[in-house]
Parts: sequence; C-alpha cells; structure tokens
Amino acid sequence: MTAPTLRPADFIRKIRDRAPVTGDEVREFVRGITAGTVADYQATAFLMAVYLQGLADDATVALTLAMRDSGRVIDLGGVPGIKVDKHSTGGVGDKISLPLAPLVAACGVPVPMVSGRGLGHTGGTLDKLESIPGFRVDLELPRFCELVASLGCCLIGQTGDLAPADKKLYALRDVTSTVESVPLITSSILSKKLAEGIDALVLDVKVGRGAFMKDLASARRLAESLVRVGSGAGKKVVALLTRMEEPLGTTIGNALEVRESIDILRGEGPPDTTELTLALGVEMLRLGGVAATEAEARAKLRAAITSGAGLDKLRRIVEAQHGDPRAIDDPSRLPTARVRTSVRATRGGFVGAIDSLVLGLAAMRLGAGRARAEDRVDPAVGLELRVRRGDAVRPGDELAVVHHQGQGEGAVAEVLGGFAIVEAPPPAASLVLERVAS
Amino acid sequence: MTAPTLRPADFIRKIRDRAPVTGDEVREFVRGITAGTVADYQATAFLMAVYLQGLADDATVALTLAMRDSGRVIDLGGVPGIKVDKHSTGGVGDKISLPLAPLVAACGVPVPMVSGRGLGHTGGTLDKLESIPGFRVDLELPRFCELVASLGCCLIGQTGDLAPADKKLYALRDVTSTVESVPLITSSILSKKLAEGIDALVLDVKVGRGAFMKDLASARRLAESLVRVGSGAGKKVVALLTRMEEPLGTTIGNALEVRESIDILRGEGPPDTTELTLALGVEMLRLGGVAATEAEARAKLRAAITSGAGLDKLRRIVEAQHGDPRAIDDPSRLPTARVRTSVRATRGGFVGAIDSLVLGLAAMRLGAGRARAEDRVDPAVGLELRVRRGDAVRPGDELAVVHHQGQGEGAVAEVLGGFAIVEAPPPAASLVLERVAS
Repeated sequence: MTAPTLRPADFIRKIRDRAPVTGDEVREFVRGITAGTVADYQATAFLMAVYLQGLADDATVALTLAMRDSGRVIDLGGVPGIKVDKHSTGGVGDKISLPLAPLVAACGVPVPMVSGRGLGHTGGTLDKLESIPGFRVDLELPRFCELVASLGCCLIGQTGDLAPADKKLYALRDVTSTVESVPLITSSILSKKLAEGIDALVLDVKVGRGAFMKDLASARRLAESLVRVGSGAGKKVVALLTRMEEPLGTTIGNALEVRESIDILRGEGPPDTTELTLALGVEMLRLGGVAATEAEARAKLRAAITSGAGLDKLRRIVEAQHGDPRAIDDPSRLPTARVRTSVRATRGGFVGAIDSLVLGLAAMRLGAGRARAEDRVDPAVGLELRVRRGDAVRPGDELAVVHHQGQGEGAVAEVLGGFAIVEAPPPAASLVLERVAS
Repeated sequence: MTAPTLRPADFIRKIRDRAPVTGDEVREFVRGITAGTVADYQATAFLMAVYLQGLADDATVALTLAMRDSGRVIDLGGVPGIKVDKHSTGGVGDKISLPLAPLVAACGVPVPMVSGRGLGHTGGTLDKLESIPGFRVDLELPRFCELVASLGCCLIGQTGDLAPADKKLYALRDVTSTVESVPLITSSILSKKLAEGIDALVLDVKVGRGAFMKDLASARRLAESLVRVGSGAGKKVVALLTRMEEPLGTTIGNALEVRESIDILRGEGPPDTTELTLALGVEMLRLGGVAATEAEARAKLRAAITSGAGLDKLRRIVEAQHGDPRAIDDPSRLPTARVRTSVRATRGGFVGAIDSLVLGLAAMRLGAGRARAEDRVDPAVGLELRVRRGDAVRPGDELAVVHHQGQGEGAVAEVLGGFAIVEAPPPAASLVLERVAS
C-alpha cells in the first residue's frame, strides 16, 4: 500500500512548523529530490527549515536511510565478520585512517572505507593515499568488495552512485549557508557510510580551532546525534570527541603524512597520532567483536604494530590498489619537495599553542590542499612540526620546516604566526575529550 | 562607488543569523534574483530564512524598494495632486475598490489602481471589472497615465514589467510554504503599489475566518509592518483592520458584486459595504489632501454619492476602458446566471455567524473564482445573501440565493452549512476594528 502523496510544499510546511513527519513522507521527498520531481528551490527551502528548526531523530533516521537508498548500497554480506569503518569530521594533520585501517584489518576486523578529498584547511584521505606512487582510489565496487574479503581492507573514493541524494543536497547546502546543521551533517555522514555496507562505525568528532565544531558543546551535540541516528538506523556507533586545537602529529601535507603513518605502524610515530590510532582502533576492535575489553583491544593493536602485521597489511593494500609497495619500506620513494625552509623562533619561552587553522591554511596555500574543489594538490609540499605544544624553545630554534617547490618562502611568516610562544608552560590537554556511545 | 560584492550564500547567512544587512546588499541580492545570477534555490533559502527569522524594517524597506525597482516604475509626476491608492489583503465579497476608486476620484483625489485576480476563496477586482461587457484591464501604461490625469482614475491589471522580482519571488513562495511571512507580504504588497507611482496608500487589512490573517494580533503585526515600511519608503500609509468573519455586503461573485457596487454609488448599498467604502474613502481623501478632518471627508464622499458624481465617474471609467457604460444604469445588461436556487433555513432562531470561508469556497466552486491561477471564471455565477448576521429567521426563510448555470444545486447544502442559526442574537460586531497610522 502506498501512502497518499504529500505535496513538496506541504512537506516543507511541516518541517518549517516542527510538525511530525512520517518516514514515508521523508522517503517520498528524498526520492523526489533524486528524481528531480522536487525542485532544487524546494530542497533548499527544506534545508533552511531544517537548519533553523532542527529535525526530530526519527525523521533524521528516515532522511539518512532515504539518502543511503537514493543510490547503490554495497552488499558486504558475503564477507565474514563485522564490518567496521571510521569517519573523522576533519582536522589538520589528520592522517589517522592510513595507519588505522590496515592495523584494524590486521587484527581481524574487515574495514571497508570510502573516503573523501581535502577542502579548505583540512586534508583528505584520498589525497594522502594518492601521494603513494601509482595508488588508485577509483577501484570498481566489485573489486572493492573482493579486497575487503581477501585483505580485510580497501580504501576508495566516493563514486557517483553511492548516496547521490547526499551529493545533490551537499552541493545545495554549500551555496545556501545551510552546512552547519546537526541533523543535516548527521544524515550526510551516515548516509554515505551506511551505503558502504558496514555493520558498525566509529566516529572521530573533532573539536577546536581547526575543526568544523569549534566548541565542546556543539561537537557533543553532533556526536550524540550521530550515535542516536546511527543506532536508529540499526548500526552500532561509537563517537570519540577529540581535540583539534594543534595539528595532529608532526606533519601536514600528503606524502609527509604518509611518512608519519608508516612511522606509526612501525611503532615510531608521534605520541598523539599513535595514541589516537590506538584509541579509535580499540573502539573498532570492540565493535568488530574481536576484543571484549579495552585492554584486550589495545594489546592486540600493539601486537600488530610490534609484529609488523599492520605495516604488512598496508603494504598489501598499496600493492592491491596499484601503488608501489616499496614506498612503504623506503619512504624516499614518496614525492619530495625541492626546498625545505626552516621556521625559527624569534624569542624564547614555551610553545603555548599551535594554531591548526593557521597552519592548515598555510599548507593549503602551499599546494597541499584545495581552496576550491577543482584545485589540484601537490603531493610533496607541506609542513613538518619540530616542536609540540608545551615544549621549551630558545630564540632561533627550529619550530617547523616548510616543504615547498621554491614558492614557499612567503609561508614562513604565516607559519610562525601560528605558534604562540609564552612564558610559562601551558596546562596539559587531553587528546580524547569524551566518548559517546548508545 | 560600488559596494564590495557579497556572495549570495553569505547574504543568506546574514539573514539566517539575523545579522544586519545593508541596503546595498539587499539591492544586490534582488538584482541577482531578477537577473538570474542568484539561483532560485538561493532565493528560496533566503525566503525560508526570512519566514523563520523575520527581517528588520530597514532591510524590508530596502527589499521593497529593490523589488519595486526590478521593473518599470510608473511616473505620475505629471499628474497634479496627491495620488492615492487602496489595497485590500483580500476577503469574501470584497468589491470595495469598485465603488471606492470612482468615488474618491470624484472628490478630486487621483486614484491609479493596479489590481489582481482572485485565487482560492477570495475574489479579485479585475475579474469583477471584466464582468462589465467589454471592460478591458490590459491598457498600456501610457494610456493608464493619461486616464489617471484626465479622469482621475484608471483600474488595470499588473503587467509583467511592474515589480518582476515580486512576481518571481511570489511564485517561489507559493511552492515552498513561505507565503505567510509579515516582511515578505509587506514587501510584496508595497513593491507593486509603489511601482504604480502613488504618493500615499490606504490598506484594508482583513481579519477573520475568510481572511489571510485569522486573528487580530497577526493582522495588527502586518498592518504595523506595512505602515512602518511604507513610511520608510517615503510614502504616507494608513491601514484599517477590518472584520472578515462574514462575507462583505450581500453578494459574492463578479457581476453580482458589480451590481452591489452600483447600488453603493447610488446610495442604496448594504450598510456594511457602504460604511467600509466611506471609511476607506475618508482615509484616502485625507491622505490626498482634499479634506482636513474625518467629518469633512465623509461629507464630501456622501455628497458625491448624493449628487451622482461617483456613479458618473464609474460610468466614464467604464467607457474609457472599453466597457459598456449602459450597464451602469441598467445592470440587467450585466451577465446573469440561468438558474437561481434558494437556500432556506431548516430551523428558526438568529443568524449567529455566516462563514465567509465556506461561502467563498462555495462561490469559487460555482465558477466565480479560481482553484488554480489558470482556471477561468464565470462572471454571472455566485451567491446573494438574503439575511445578515443578527437577523431573526424562521424555518423556510430564504437565507441566500445561489446563482448558477444549472450545475449549482450541490452548492445549496454547502452554503446552508455556512450559516449558524442560534437561539439568541449574537453581540454586535464592529466592521472597522482598528486604525494604524505612522
């Protein structure tokens, strides 16, 4: 039995008035958006109404599922095990997917990962992977499924047939100032992830200067919405709220971040990115059913680092995705920038803060990221941090190194401006701020 | 000097956040809408943001003026006198423009009137005028100006080149549930009226069952907004809030309402429509500077009825606009429906209420109005009321007469349902509820 048709204007009126809507009504509206029978000018009135009036959880679940079902939904039912993915809301220096996915797969949890590209001051997993010579992120979906089955992991880019309604709505949100809406972000993230065929999802919701969510309260709202709606859609979802004031780790820029990722898998990574990899890995292993406790999960992950199983998994993934696996053992095979220019402290004291937004934008302007979606990235350029928040510095100490192609001298002052040198050491700060689970 | 360009998305963001916007920013956005550089999907996000967040008066003034300036603005500077128009927000049986415009013109105030067509349960002045054989509402603007100069009055329909931005926005509001917004209604009404080249405006803001505004508080908000924004745009504006529970007068339907209009100009009209004509006329005469006090204005209007000057003015207008002036003296020349069917009381008591919404919809379904903009109206059909609110009735008394072409028997029950017969006479109710002036 088909529900009686609701005119798009009447559906919008209900959303506008915070009136209850049925799942069928939401599905019909989203189907109309995908099919073009709901006009773009109706979609954007809906988006602004949701932005300003919010959307109830049950409607957000229906919106998420309808967006997922607007295109192809990958069926990984033939792959044994609980399929778990990780999604980050985006930060500066956030290369965690690169060490995390192989490490978790090496521990026996299949990781089907569909990632995005960088935009603005934040980087994207696809751009980082593509800095490995030959690496391809445009595998066909059957091959993606094969690799998840045989290797336990595959990392590809979003194809046009996954959640096309989200693609359309996202483009409209961008030009109508309706991006920063918890239910719209929730449905956008989850619809794409659910289309991957996952059973469970770990979310890394960033908080701070360099993040989309600038304060803990709004990040918590988003995390809680993601967990509630993800659970409502029948998936196990856990979110970690993590600090994004300073850049993550010691590198910003695509090939530089691949090097750091390899370091992490070798057990030689910076403390923060290593810890975040483990913290997210613990959640994935527990959701994936291969570890009962946090301690057990952490031990398995550490063992996979010590044994080299995680690095080996990355090597095999690179090989299967047409990349040069020798780059994993010899990172000098990764693209290298022509020039390195030091950024030095002009006075002594302590590193009080490192502004991830400033450094992210500087790296973007060097060519590591994109100001517009159509820009091309340079895999070799970026920033390397020589000091961490809290470190003591003397005048003339190297704070960072700019990796560039000869055009990057201008970035020095910009990067220097991102470091706050203060008289007393700043208070310690936790990386993982909160955990949200259903 | 040109203001720096604001991207449409950033303008929408300001409206969304109730941030101040400059007149230049509003003008640029409206120019973009008219030129097509602002997409419809951005216009509707703006409309929903205004619907939910409101719009400051200065921005509403800028929106009104920008919409006025999106097309041609009639220049009546060559016509001596203060040009005054009247606009009603629409009611059932509201034929007041037909007696009012000639009567005010006969008293020496030029009335340039651009009117609309009926939609839904409310009628439109153009449809009523066109029921006069030959009457044309599509005069060219130069001829319109000539007639305002020579006769003191001309009544035409909105042409495509008057306030095209309003036309575009109105169509988008209709399909995105953003119609019922005080600043959007204000700018829509005023932009069209200001494009007529008027100096002052009297507004009849209807309140009640048959009106757009169902309660006094929301009608007052609209009236106050119209007066404030109209004043901000440099015009003298007065608004009357008037009762629209019962239909106005004794007729609903185009030719029937012309007959009643002629009655009013003959001094033989029903008390309520006569009184509303006088009340609005008083405001127009005072704004037009031909009467200093209410008493003086009322005396002039009554004299123009008694002398026949008002009726003569209507006759001349009809003639100038290609209509048959003999219909004014011999209303039997107006279209007449084939069949008249009585609606009779089934029990005795007092007429407690006459539901203007029910009767307006019944008249529309008979063919007097339009369910959709593209429907054609039948000038002859409609309803004639035989009793007024408060009248005593006995079983079998005629309450109303349905004028139809043979298909209207089904309307009898519907019309009967619009009459509430109660045991005690209802309390008296004022027609003019409030007056709002700057």
